[in-house]
Amino acid sequence: MTPAVAGPPVFDVDDPRLARAAWSRLAEPGDEVAVALVDQLGPGPALAWLYEAVRDPAQARRALVGLAEAGGAGAVADGEGAAPDPLAVDGVVGALPADRAPAGADRDVRSRAVARLLRAVARWAPRLDGLDPRRELRVLERLGGELLVPGDAGWPVGLDDLGPVRPLALWVRGNRDLAALAERSVAVVGARACTDYGRHVTGEIAAGLAARGFTVVSGGAYGIDAAAHRAAVVSGGPTVAFLAGGVDRFYPAGNTELLREVVASGGAVVSEVPPGSVPSRVRFLLRNRLIAAVAGATVVVEAAWRSGSLSTAVRAAELSRPVGAVPGPVTSMASAGCHRLLRDGAAVCVTDADEVAELAGVLSRDAAPSAPGDARGAPRRAAYDGLDDVETRAWDALPVRSGVPTEAVARSAGLAVADAVGALGRLEIRGLAERTPGGWRRARTP
Amino acid sequence: MTPAVAGPPVFDVDDPRLARAAWSRLAEPGDEVAVALVDQLGPGPALAWLYEAVRDPAQARRALVGLAEAGGAGAVADGEGAAPDPLAVDGVVGALPADRAPAGADRDVRSRAVARLLRAVARWAPRLDGLDPRRELRVLERLGGELLVPGDAGWPVGLDDLGPVRPLALWVRGNRDLAALAERSVAVVGARACTDYGRHVTGEIAAGLAARGFTVVSGGAYGIDAAAHRAAVVSGGPTVAFLAGGVDRFYPAGNTELLREVVASGGAVVSEVPPGSVPSRVRFLLRNRLIAAVAGATVVVEAAWRSGSLSTAVRAAELSRPVGAVPGPVTSMASAGCHRLLRDGAAVCVTDADEVAELAGVLSRDAAPSAPGDARGAPRRAAYDGLDDVETRAWDALPVRSGVPTEAVARSAGLAVADAVGALGRLEIRGLAERTPGGWRRARTP
Repeated sequence: MTPAVAGPPVFDVDDPRLARAAWSRLAEPGDEVAVALVDQLGPGPALAWLYEAVRDPAQARRALVGLAEAGGAGAVADGEGAAPDPLAVDGVVGALPADRAPAGADRDVRSRAVARLLRAVARWAPRLDGLDPRRELRVLERLGGELLVPGDAGWPVGLDDLGPVRPLALWVRGNRDLAALAERSVAVVGARACTDYGRHVTGEIAAGLAARGFTVVSGGAYGIDAAAHRAAVVSGGPTVAFLAGGVDRFYPAGNTELLREVVASGGAVVSEVPPGSVPSRVRFLLRNRLIAAVAGATVVVEAAWRSGSLSTAVRAAELSRPVGAVPGPVTSMASAGCHRLLRDGAAVCVTDADEVAELAGVLSRDAAPSAPGDARGAPRRAAYDGLDDVETRAWDALPVRSGVPTEAVARSAGLAVADAVGALGRLEIRGLAERTPGGWRRARTP
Repeated sequence: MTPAVAGPPVFDVDDPRLARAAWSRLAEPGDEVAVALVDQLGPGPALAWLYEAVRDPAQARRALVGLAEAGGAGAVADGEGAAPDPLAVDGVVGALPADRAPAGADRDVRSRAVARLLRAVARWAPRLDGLDPRRELRVLERLGGELLVPGDAGWPVGLDDLGPVRPLALWVRGNRDLAALAERSVAVVGARACTDYGRHVTGEIAAGLAARGFTVVSGGAYGIDAAAHRAAVVSGGPTVAFLAGGVDRFYPAGNTELLREVVASGGAVVSEVPPGSVPSRVRFLLRNRLIAAVAGATVVVEAAWRSGSLSTAVRAAELSRPVGAVPGPVTSMASAGCHRLLRDGAAVCVTDADEVAELAGVLSRDAAPSAPGDARGAPRRAAYDGLDDVETRAWDALPVRSGVPTEAVARSAGLAVADAVGALGRLEIRGLAERTPGGWRRARTP
């Protein structure tokens, strides 16, 4: 079983956009070696080096092993490696995290980094055959989409916080200014198998966020994701869906109409894999890191004990993004994951859009009302609200019907008579106590 | 309006139990001055001093003011005060917290402490008239109850953590060994106006706690409290109800039968106010501190935004007792208080008896299962559980129907061909992949 040997590239590898598009096809999401290589050499030279390394694997191996053994860039500058620039590849070897190497074992670390690079070449090679990113770009163009790469004005810089696993490019349909969309945004994610409760709460929160000018970010899936996108669209707020597969085919099929509306209403549907890519399970999980990194905060509405949404929440927390979880009935398995996050202290308890906005926003602008007054319906105001301790005790001790002497009120309330006299006077002024021939009693409510 | 002048005591004030019983009638719950006086002089001498001070208020005032102005005990030792022992009363003045006095203003602090003591005498005086604790003790005795005072074997020492607001005595019906009952105990409290959900969850938690040997402590009220006591009784575990009024008349009347069962089944009904005392609102709130202090941990199951149960939780947290809150639907006002506790970080999210036991118990003995395996029903086990990353990618890339060559699997999975070969072999051994004339595919599930 020999890997298909790729011919020379059929497109201009020196075009950095084309090269990034190609890399996003060659490397699976989260491929640290591809990110390091593109980072050190630039997307075009990295691609040219890869073609060369695949054309002559034995020479590539020799050159890299030489790099590892030499232990320094200077010593290999004269070696005729497969790389266009051995110095630069040496930089990659130096930059590559080498599978948890013990510190100090320098030579060893470099050997392992080289081995890692060779393994990466072996897994990229099968995809070089027939590689032509212009084809996928044409598909995207026909759909009105655009490729975003780091440095573009619309590139959401939050993604760069992903460091070694940041995406190489984004395939975008709809509003290409992801930077603007992300600036004030919240990820609302959760279980596909959600309950009516979860759907309802998601709708309330997403609509409230849209009304407050937040972009709702989610994963375009059934259940909570769909409810979040839908509520944002209906509320006229932009919303962004990150898909695990290519943006040419909306997945799941049942959300096709919804995702069209996402695109049509000022939002975007985005993927880091090119058109034609299928959404695999691994890609679903890795897609979650993009949601966590792009959004200013992440809220999980419903999630089972083991749920992909939890990975989004954990990722967001690792990136120092605020994370919220919506509680639900403890009898509902669909909330078990949220309660787990709360229990572990990984998430803050959030119950409405106010609290989510406070989590995500600038405090002065988005602070949730601390008293439940308006938002939760005015609490019942009791007659004794606003009384001090002595007045409360006196009022408590007052009979409802026939009046009693001040001394009796004092004794019953545990007050000095003088204090009872004062408190009863103040209660009378507030219309809460009244004098009768027999003494004090509570005033009849008007 | 002159306060009724009390005659001499009709009972033996030197009997410390009788004196404490009297004090628990004279002073309202949480009366810091009474606690300080009883603490410094002893219950009997404190009571004798009070009778004397009420008999001759002018002289008591003069003596106390002298104490304040002298600024030291030695200087007033020759004064003929109303107190049986001016030195001791001086100690009270020194021990009394003087309404947030600035440090250093020593003379001033003493003046304010004296003023506070005089005010306290004025509020205790109305209750001296006809005071006879033997009457209340006889009532308790007829009901099979017993007075507990600090130092008794059954006294629950957790109450002493309340410091200046600790109770002076406890009136107990049922199991008088509150110390043993409290040793392994959890307070389960919540709203009177609870929902079916809250009642159900309370029942599950309280029954689970009883099964694990915990005493369930609560307030004997309708709603969550009643559900907690009932589940404990039904499960055969002891349960303790702290009432706001006297234990002679069970309150609320609708819980009379339940509270009888609490007494009959090895538990206890307890109050710090003597038989005949009515449950006032202030007493309800102050009763909560006893629940918080006695129990090893406090759990709030349902509580509205403003709820007395929250005061129990806050008190427990102040006393460094673990506090848990049970989440519920955010659409339910009955859970708003619980969510508030979670949001404020005042409580840990708890969802079942395991987690509450872990909160309250010794970790090794009561740790909640970290995986949801048994307790929550075994989670669905997928075919791909236990696969490593490479195997997962390979399995994801396998077609279900017609087989494909290894190279196709490698390309689709983003794997090197050599890695794909290895992974497919391992998947075959596990019965997850099979070879067909056309190549690899997923094995048919047997």
